[in-house]
Amino acid sequence: MILAIPLDTEASAPLYEQIYSYIKNEIRNGGLHYKDRLPSARGLAQALQISRNTVDLAYDQLASEGYIESVPRSGYYVCRIGNLTHLNAERIVPARSVLSRDETYRYDFNPFAIDIANFPYSVWRKISRNCLSGENHELFLSGDWQGDRNFREAIAKYLHASRGVSCTADTIVIGAGTGYLLQLLAQLLRPREGIGRIAFENPTYIKAYRTFQRFGYEAKGIPVDAEGISLRELIASGASIAYVTPSHQYPLGTIMTVRRRTDLLAWAAEEPDRYIIEDDHDSEFRYKGKPIPSLQGMDSANRVIYLGTFSRAVTPAIRAGYMVLPPELLKRYRAEFAYSSTVSRFDQAILTEFITQGHFERHVNKMRTIYKAKHDCLQKALKRFGNDIRVTGEHAGLHLVVEFLKEPSEEELIEKAEKAGIRLFGLNAHYIEKPENSVPTLLIGFANLTEEEITSGIHRLYDLISAKE
Amino acid sequence: MILAIPLDTEASAPLYEQIYSYIKNEIRNGGLHYKDRLPSARGLAQALQISRNTVDLAYDQLASEGYIESVPRSGYYVCRIGNLTHLNAERIVPARSVLSRDETYRYDFNPFAIDIANFPYSVWRKISRNCLSGENHELFLSGDWQGDRNFREAIAKYLHASRGVSCTADTIVIGAGTGYLLQLLAQLLRPREGIGRIAFENPTYIKAYRTFQRFGYEAKGIPVDAEGISLRELIASGASIAYVTPSHQYPLGTIMTVRRRTDLLAWAAEEPDRYIIEDDHDSEFRYKGKPIPSLQGMDSANRVIYLGTFSRAVTPAIRAGYMVLPPELLKRYRAEFAYSSTVSRFDQAILTEFITQGHFERHVNKMRTIYKAKHDCLQKALKRFGNDIRVTGEHAGLHLVVEFLKEPSEEELIEKAEKAGIRLFGLNAHYIEKPENSVPTLLIGFANLTEEEITSGIHRLYDLISAKE
Repeated sequence: MILAIPLDTEASAPLYEQIYSYIKNEIRNGGLHYKDRLPSARGLAQALQISRNTVDLAYDQLASEGYIESVPRSGYYVCRIGNLTHLNAERIVPARSVLSRDETYRYDFNPFAIDIANFPYSVWRKISRNCLSGENHELFLSGDWQGDRNFREAIAKYLHASRGVSCTADTIVIGAGTGYLLQLLAQLLRPREGIGRIAFENPTYIKAYRTFQRFGYEAKGIPVDAEGISLRELIASGASIAYVTPSHQYPLGTIMTVRRRTDLLAWAAEEPDRYIIEDDHDSEFRYKGKPIPSLQGMDSANRVIYLGTFSRAVTPAIRAGYMVLPPELLKRYRAEFAYSSTVSRFDQAILTEFITQGHFERHVNKMRTIYKAKHDCLQKALKRFGNDIRVTGEHAGLHLVVEFLKEPSEEELIEKAEKAGIRLFGLNAHYIEKPENSVPTLLIGFANLTEEEITSGIHRLYDLISAKE
Repeated sequence: MILAIPLDTEASAPLYEQIYSYIKNEIRNGGLHYKDRLPSARGLAQALQISRNTVDLAYDQLASEGYIESVPRSGYYVCRIGNLTHLNAERIVPARSVLSRDETYRYDFNPFAIDIANFPYSVWRKISRNCLSGENHELFLSGDWQGDRNFREAIAKYLHASRGVSCTADTIVIGAGTGYLLQLLAQLLRPREGIGRIAFENPTYIKAYRTFQRFGYEAKGIPVDAEGISLRELIASGASIAYVTPSHQYPLGTIMTVRRRTDLLAWAAEEPDRYIIEDDHDSEFRYKGKPIPSLQGMDSANRVIYLGTFSRAVTPAIRAGYMVLPPELLKRYRAEFAYSSTVSRFDQAILTEFITQGHFERHVNKMRTIYKAKHDCLQKALKRFGNDIRVTGEHAGLHLVVEFLKEPSEEELIEKAEKAGIRLFGLNAHYIEKPENSVPTLLIGFANLTEEEITSGIHRLYDLISAKE
């Protein structure tokens, strides 16, 4: 039968491939069996009136894939192969991003969202055009593991000037977002033997907490008082690493005092291999007074790892975070983590220009004004609740922390609002251990709403809640 | 003294900031001490002939940073703070990428390099311009965690058509390069309790091996015979995960036979939580016959994780890898790893167009022809060595495996060539355990050299070696 392979000389597939496919299918469908002998290449070529090479090519391919094997001075034989049925992968509903605006809500008070209506699109377009234009072919090669040097230099300048971070291009490591950098740190900081112990402010950026847990760390939540993370409890926890957000506690928005900062730095300096991870998220957006200088800038013992990102201040579309490593960790990173950079070189080039040409600073200043207006507008709208609520975490960031003193349950409040087309986010999701008798508290984001939407959204929420009473 | 703060009304810094900085420095320099009382805001305002608000603003800032604190009905007092000296981060020489061409060599036979001289730059520019132009603002928001849907759809189509991978957009996860995806997998596959056991072909992609080791896995090297990874040894190893490169063993270039594939799939199906990671690197570049279909396409038990990247076929400047997850792992990923995507949305958009407009296929076909010519040229040039060498791993990928039968040492050979301006890469670096009496073997890459360079480079190497005898 194999001598009767139907060949279609009009077909797009070359003849050798038709022969290959035919025989392969015969084998897979059981038309040809283990140890069956194939016709000689010459014989088949004659039978099909085609060139010997064509058949050889088909046989080679079948042999290279292991369907047939050549037995010297005898010919080609079918190999033993198991059953090869296909199965379509199960369909699963795709994930949706919490970060982009959810149009299914009329009012989305998402604290993770940002305002991109005022992004300098034309500038961005122009820069990106310039970066790709001309003979800049080098940009299409893989770049420096740590991130492209001029990009790191631009970041170093910015961090030094605006955040008081003590760093050079050499001490900066670029990565695809803080999420990725935290995974890197979890690997970098893991002790040679035994398990790592890390402390987090409670509440905190829960994804950071989970990341370290997943890497086998014993992760503890430490209470936060008015000055910042509790030193007493931190010491009691036995942790050697502390993940903190000093300039703007996430999500509460409190500022770590200088006293607490110096105590924390002293704690880190006490023992070798104690480190502080300073996540300086949202540091660009402070609406009263000057930005709070970084903790890292106060560190004289090289124990602070400084972490930041461009996704809030520029756009989350770009996955570009950065960290400043102390010399010891930098050595370890260089020795063990020399993987290709995870950040697109095009984005690195565009961001570099965006920063060095001054657009970044301009944009941040512009957004600060816009966000301040929205922040003030939200504060004003919330007054409607009078003494039923307590607002904290003002004057910075992209959300306010609002305690609803008269509400029985955070979850019910959120659910109720959701039914009315208002999307709210609760504080509970940020707790490692939820403190007893905590008041229902919302993190009300204002970045991605107009002032009109903020006002009417909050008023609608008020009506919704007061309707109950 | 504090009443005599020098104010410069011409200065760019606002007055409140000058006051803030002055007092802050006094505190930091010890000019003001713990418990020192500051003048009242009103008093200072009068003394400096400025508005009360300006002083309040400065005091607020100092208080919010914890330099001073307000004692009700008494005034502002300096807080206790430790010593705050700075230390400049130690300078360390920056890392260099192995992937880009090293100009310090006259001939760089880097097997990791690719040829970007023939990249369709203008097409890329055009597409990127279109992606950014117009009102496509949505692109500046953060996208889907798993990767943008249309990007995953384009990849699914391609993988299904050209690699026989059974997948849908829903089962594909995008990540910043295979390095990152392997880190994700190491987390995803870690057993609930106990340590994970993973087997690698020996030799293998050593970075994958190290990654799993770093995640606490017990990683074993399994010998590779002519058909592929040794099943007997794999079973003996007690591993539940196998990392393999079936269509083109890395770095040896052998092809796993269908028999071995079915045996491997049967092994995986035997036990729950057994998985195979199929790294399909370089699958686009096969110079004889058709591409070898993927192992994943033969898998009827949903145990194969398919891994691929665009950095070799398009450009390493883009950090875009993809993996196809079996339903069980996809559920786990959705439940626990819903982090922001690590791939730039701009690159995702550009690549999507690049693929759907047919440029990707055209480019790959073009590069296949170019690489084949270089491959053949290298083979030809190597003939000069006659029986002193043995060449394997032909007809695919971007390097040849060359055993130097008469050379005493791989390292010496590489070092000697290096002195003569020829950069060579040895096989030893890819071994988990180096087998006894192994022959000095080089992985000679040809992608980033012209045919002239290949020929003269190899001839020069020949002269260098024969000169010794």
